[in-house]
Amino acid sequence: MASPDTEKTTGKGLAGVIALDTEICFIDGQKGILIYSGYDIGDLAAHCSFEEVAFLLWNGRLPDDRELRDLSLRLASERTLPPMVIDTLRLMPEDADPMAALRTGVSILSLFDGEADDMSPEANMRKAIRLTARIPVIIAALDRLRKGEEMVDPLKDGSTATNFLYMMSGQKPGEAAERTFDACLVLHAEHGLNASTFTGRVIGATLSDMYSAITGAIGALKGPLHGGANIRVMEMLTAIDRSGSSPTTFVKKLLADKERVMGFGHRVYKTIDPRATILREMVDSLSAEQGTRKWYDMSLEIMDVMAKNKNLYPNVDFFSASVYATLGISTDLFTPIFAMARITGWSAHLLEQWKDNRLIRPRAAYTGPVGRTTGRS
Amino acid sequence: MASPDTEKTTGKGLAGVIALDTEICFIDGQKGILIYSGYDIGDLAAHCSFEEVAFLLWNGRLPDDRELRDLSLRLASERTLPPMVIDTLRLMPEDADPMAALRTGVSILSLFDGEADDMSPEANMRKAIRLTARIPVIIAALDRLRKGEEMVDPLKDGSTATNFLYMMSGQKPGEAAERTFDACLVLHAEHGLNASTFTGRVIGATLSDMYSAITGAIGALKGPLHGGANIRVMEMLTAIDRSGSSPTTFVKKLLADKERVMGFGHRVYKTIDPRATILREMVDSLSAEQGTRKWYDMSLEIMDVMAKNKNLYPNVDFFSASVYATLGISTDLFTPIFAMARITGWSAHLLEQWKDNRLIRPRAAYTGPVGRTTGRS
Repeated sequence: MASPDTEKTTGKGLAGVIALDTEICFIDGQKGILIYSGYDIGDLAAHCSFEEVAFLLWNGRLPDDRELRDLSLRLASERTLPPMVIDTLRLMPEDADPMAALRTGVSILSLFDGEADDMSPEANMRKAIRLTARIPVIIAALDRLRKGEEMVDPLKDGSTATNFLYMMSGQKPGEAAERTFDACLVLHAEHGLNASTFTGRVIGATLSDMYSAITGAIGALKGPLHGGANIRVMEMLTAIDRSGSSPTTFVKKLLADKERVMGFGHRVYKTIDPRATILREMVDSLSAEQGTRKWYDMSLEIMDVMAKNKNLYPNVDFFSASVYATLGISTDLFTPIFAMARITGWSAHLLEQWKDNRLIRPRAAYTGPVGRTTGRS
Repeated sequence: MASPDTEKTTGKGLAGVIALDTEICFIDGQKGILIYSGYDIGDLAAHCSFEEVAFLLWNGRLPDDRELRDLSLRLASERTLPPMVIDTLRLMPEDADPMAALRTGVSILSLFDGEADDMSPEANMRKAIRLTARIPVIIAALDRLRKGEEMVDPLKDGSTATNFLYMMSGQKPGEAAERTFDACLVLHAEHGLNASTFTGRVIGATLSDMYSAITGAIGALKGPLHGGANIRVMEMLTAIDRSGSSPTTFVKKLLADKERVMGFGHRVYKTIDPRATILREMVDSLSAEQGTRKWYDMSLEIMDVMAKNKNLYPNVDFFSASVYATLGISTDLFTPIFAMARITGWSAHLLEQWKDNRLIRPRAAYTGPVGRTTGRS
């Protein structure tokens, strides 16, 4: 047998290994650049809706008016759940982890999709649209049902952002709420070969179906090292609010105690996270519309302290926490909302994977014992 | 931004890339060697039960008598399902894909495990045992419920193999059935960094929970390029049976038509798959006990034709198909049974991953368009 010590792992966690080619997303962390299919994220967030961006990720180009109208109609017609998903949400414990609930809900969706195992590009595109339409419905349903409230049917039309906020609250969102939440979806739609997207592609590469791949991706996004960063930002904001201290005092104490201030710095971005800059500019009008500047002002003050004292700038999680809190969304739904945006990137990567598929299967170096025998006969 | 053309993918599908170190399993495909934690698979299949092998994979050593008894007791006490899993199985369409059903069932298990998000090694070990106990119960339950039969409670004691066959049929299995099925579980328990195990580790590396990782692994195993090989063997055997031709005639025609004969050759093993040799020897006594040599004789004849005409030898899937068919198990349960064995390897890899965790996140090379703008303002 091969000698274990001649084998070396390529890089722990596959760091620096280039696993595949993609036309979907480019990130230059040094320069703070994020590009979806050739378009700068700032351009997209300012000028395109989440639905346009979804189309872009899936097709590699922006839709024309007719294509965008068609997609919106399709999404509207798919904003329903098989009764079993609702029955299952009702059977869940009230304190069920929302990501575990979403993972289960998406897994069940496949049982009622006659195209679940149809691997034609057309069927897979329809499933991508279906999942983009239904994940928000699952999240809104689980939030209302666990509060003992009835579900709110979606509107006949309107954007994903509008429909989600409406299904959550039963009230049509204001203009700034819709616009800011839509931008959050655009900003979270895609981010290269992160752990959940990679999970989806590894599962998809076995030619397993889109629901299996997305169920796995949701499970990966649930991990604290991946999707939960804005939850920890919110926990910090809540702790500051409860402490009675000023944000400045609170954060300076964290820094003095060498504790981590959440929402600053990013594994990929070594400069300002371009998504944070975009969100920061929107939270002002959102706060005015919602009539509470609490989370926004707190965030601005913390940002200021961190810039002056540590020369560190906020990442996208830092401001998405204040946005969702200002919209009155429960903290434990922040990661499901991440999934509701990222479903577009996940499914785009699956469509790309299946265009030229190959099983993704690295090797492991064996470092265990050799030559043992049970001695039994 | 970095120029796309300076970036090269390391190897398509990460082929040849060594992603991590493992002490769990070593495979030498050239020599036909498979080793779990230092023990040759032949030694383990001949002398150790599935429960002993599970303990070995989890702990890196075989259990002593007391440890084995403790594990058996723990498994027996965990062979129950939360009522919601059963309710959910009843709500599923009768023709639900069993792998989609299992993926859903495992996802639901987490909602009723108070330790689901406890990442201590002790809690994770308990979850590994719990999943090893419960996956067979889910599979047996879904098979009986879809046939309109009531579930059969497990025995108070006995092996995983005995209990599974009992819960499936309501009858205690014969000695050869128990022994052969137990060996099948041993042979499928672990096989290095295959696509489902890798999926599990990628999900686990985000510090997401074991249920999320296993749900994803089941989704990957569902893929035709991964777990479904023995199903395709069985489809071939069934087609031969229905054709009225002799196996020799049927297979020679396949070869003449340049069609693939299922169950021969293996991506990893370039010589005889050691697991096939072990199973082949057991199917004779199993067939005698079950009173039908049909699938076994057919398999031997095909093996002979392939050896003489193509110099190709059967893989583990080839004989596991005849074993499961001889036991009267539905073809669409072959992959779930694979999962019921592999849960031990999957969970062993997760325990290993979490001992020295690092996010698994390769990079992608961007080959898409650059410098596009929406032109909107």
